[in-house]
Parts: sequence; structure tokens; C-alpha cells
Amino acid sequence: MTTNIAANSGGIVFHFLGTGGAQQVPAFGCECEVCQQAQRNESKRRRACCAAITTKDRIILIDAGLPELSPYLLPYPQRHILLTHYHMDHVQGLFPLRWGYGEPIPVFGPPDEAGCDDLFKHPGILHFQKPLMAFQPFELDGIRITPVPLIHSKLTYGYLIQTPTHTLAYLTDTIGLPPETTQFLASHTLDYAIVDCSHPPQTMLPRNHNDITRALEIFTQLNPKQLYLTHISHELDRWLQTQTLLPENVHAAYDGLVLGL
Amino acid sequence: MTTNIAANSGGIVFHFLGTGGAQQVPAFGCECEVCQQAQRNESKRRRACCAAITTKDRIILIDAGLPELSPYLLPYPQRHILLTHYHMDHVQGLFPLRWGYGEPIPVFGPPDEAGCDDLFKHPGILHFQKPLMAFQPFELDGIRITPVPLIHSKLTYGYLIQTPTHTLAYLTDTIGLPPETTQFLASHTLDYAIVDCSHPPQTMLPRNHNDITRALEIFTQLNPKQLYLTHISHELDRWLQTQTLLPENVHAAYDGLVLGL
Repeated sequence: MTTNIAANSGGIVFHFLGTGGAQQVPAFGCECEVCQQAQRNESKRRRACCAAITTKDRIILIDAGLPELSPYLLPYPQRHILLTHYHMDHVQGLFPLRWGYGEPIPVFGPPDEAGCDDLFKHPGILHFQKPLMAFQPFELDGIRITPVPLIHSKLTYGYLIQTPTHTLAYLTDTIGLPPETTQFLASHTLDYAIVDCSHPPQTMLPRNHNDITRALEIFTQLNPKQLYLTHISHELDRWLQTQTLLPENVHAAYDGLVLGL
Repeated sequence: MTTNIAANSGGIVFHFLGTGGAQQVPAFGCECEVCQQAQRNESKRRRACCAAITTKDRIILIDAGLPELSPYLLPYPQRHILLTHYHMDHVQGLFPLRWGYGEPIPVFGPPDEAGCDDLFKHPGILHFQKPLMAFQPFELDGIRITPVPLIHSKLTYGYLIQTPTHTLAYLTDTIGLPPETTQFLASHTLDYAIVDCSHPPQTMLPRNHNDITRALEIFTQLNPKQLYLTHISHELDRWLQTQTLLPENVHAAYDGLVLGL
């Protein structure tokens, strides 16, 4: 991870660690051009959705889709984890992590009593905190975080993330936004919105995840300076390769991309 | 994977793909000598428990502890999966795999109605078969497989695996063996027994997994020609480095080890 690009803002950096869905890119057994390319070229892969906010010695991991988290967490002595929801592709890395060593890692997330499999029953070093409440901001490492409800098949939060100099909304997994979330986010000047966009344009309303059409609706609603698409499927990657450009200030994120905060 | 060592038996090969427990080696954040060594040296790692039996164009994957199964499954056009139980460290690789492409993959396992998380609800390309019954043999790819009950915190089967020339018992996860399993297995001449051995010798009876003492009791009970220990923790690896040798014909398995069947 490159950690030195945000000299303008006390070194706070947003990292895209994984920008794929549960299927990931390459998808198992898929022989499409995008998947073949990703088989050959590590940098074209899209791992399960996962991000991180780091400063010099602190990390806030947003979701835990990567199965092996040591290279990301170990360099930072101060660690927090912020979960959007308890679908497996967003928490799978927690299962081996919990049996690790070191200080307990505080884990924040929505009020989902079931969690995922036996995570709550056998938390190991994961220190699950009192569930977050929608629109109730809290502070982590001097960063203000406000949970906002999303629309998904499981109780899911997005997060408004405010550093001293930048404001970012992280909004995955979702299809569209609930009106109160749109209203709340639109009342802020967003430097960045990071939005679930799993599919190319669909004629029918997709379920659980945005297609390009719905992601661009959110762009219009929130009017961020920059919009980054994430949770991207191989079908969307294929569409992006063959279409005219995305609108100005709309970008497909990729694994390894970093933004200064 | 080396696949050419078993010319004596029609090319049937048993592969140890992962020989660690849920914690794996290196354990997250652990600074013991074994974990530091495994951090530096890929070949010293122990990934989550997973094995495979292959012939020229067929694979039977035993458990799915590795998060990325493509390199193991894709080279074999005929695929089956055989599960010992539904603990996460034995099934985690199924979650992305299910959203893949190609022929449905038949999955066999014990009669555990809950399975793990939403695997049964959203199976994708996984084709879960009618649950296996203890001591009821069946055939896969000309290999005879008999499920045997084990003793664990979740309903778990071991498997007696019989090729035209070799007999192998795969027995993880378990602490000791139920009497009827011991009796059944001891009535066969075993070329190989592969046995859960998670811990160095314990003064108190361990829970859910064997320590060396209990694994060697199974060696005495079953009298296989060769015993391989698997599901090995960093504590056991440390113990193995500092103790006198294991008894003759008892070996610690390692990721990548292959046996001819």
C-alpha cells in the first residue's frame, strides 16, 4: 500500500483494497476476456469488497473481504474495523483473524443480531462494540463517522467519513438510497462518493446492487466532486471496456487505488 | 501440485493442500519463531485444512479451506467436493466458488441441516447431494468412500478411502474416535491414516481436537503403515522442533505433500 500521497491532509489516506463482489474477478471458471486478463495480470483482479483508512500508525479497516488481512493490519499498531454488513464477502477475513494475537481489535457495525456464522459466539481478538445507530456520528482516530442506512438484502450501513479536510461517503452494498440517507448526504459537500455499482445497465430494476444507471442517479442526487464505482463484476468491466467514457468525475475504482483524505 | 508420483496406482494421488487449523500458521500477530519463519518462508505456512485426490482429469476436493480454489479445481474437468463438516475453516473457499461458471459441482457431506451461513440457500454452481450416511460406502471416480463418524463440536465425518491398490483414512476434525469408528477402521489394513493433531501433549483432555497423545493413541488403535498428522497449530510446530523424533512411521504432514494412492 502506498501511504505517502496525502501530505495535504495529515497523511490520511483512503485505500481500495478490494473492488469486486462476492464472485470476484476473475470469476471461477469464466473464460470471458476480462476474467482471462485478470487470470494473467494480478493488477486486473478485483478481490472482495474491502477498504481502509490509514494514518501513520493507525488503520480503520472497512469490511474484511480479503481472506488474508495480516499485510494490511500488521503495519499499523492501532487498529479498528468498521463493517457495513454481515454478508460473507464482507467479513470472510475475520474468521482466521479472530484467532490471532495482540490487543483486542474493536469492531463496529450495524445492529445485526445474527452477525455471520459463529463470529459473535467465538470472537477471539475481535472486540465487537455496541451496534452503531443510523445518523448517530462517532469519532475514530480523529475521523468523524456517521452511519447511514442502505438498501440491501441484509441490514447494511454506508458511512459518511469526515476528516479535518475531506468528506467521503462509502456506500456499498446497496440499490439506490433510502430517501433519508439521500437527504442527509446531499446536505454535505462530498469530495468523494464511493458507490456500489455491480452491474452494467439493466432493463429491469436489479436486486440488492446498483447497475450503472442507478449509480449515476446517486451521482446526480449527491453531486460529489468525484464518484468512484466499486463492487464491480466482470460483466460491468466488460461493459466499461466497450462503452464510451463514463461521465466526467465518475471513475471505476480498482484494487490498490488510493485517495488522499 | 505434483501429479506424477503415483505411477504404481493408475496415477491416483493424495494431496495435502492445507495442514493448519482455523488459526493457520503464521497466526495473525504472532511473533513466535515458527510464525516468523512462516512469514518469511511460504513453504513453512500451514493453510486451513484442505486436501485433494486426483487422477489425470478428475479431482475430489476434500474440504474447501483455501479461499482461492481455482488453481486446484480448474485443471481437472471432472470435479467433486467431499466435506467433513461445516466449520468455516473447512468450507470458506466455497463462498466465492459458488458464483463461478461451468458444470455444477456435486458436493457430498454429512447430514447437517444448517450447513454454514447461506451456502444451502444460495448454492450457485454447488450441487449439494443427499447427505451421506455413516458406514454407507459409495463410489466416486472408481474410488470407494465410506463415511465414519468423528468426535467434534459439529457433526463431522472422517472418510475411509479405498483405491484399487491403497487404503487411506482421513480423520479430521476429531478428538479421539467413537468406538464404532475405531472398530470399523481397525478391521481394514490401512496404508495411510491422516489424523487431526492440533496440539502438543496436553495435561488436561483437549476439546474438539487431538493433541499428540491422543493422535498416537489412534496410531496404536488403527495400526496404519504410515500415520500423517494434520490440522497442526504453531504450538505443535514449536513442540515438534524441540522434541525428540516422532515414533517410526509417524510424520507431520505439510502443505504440498503428496502421497501415491
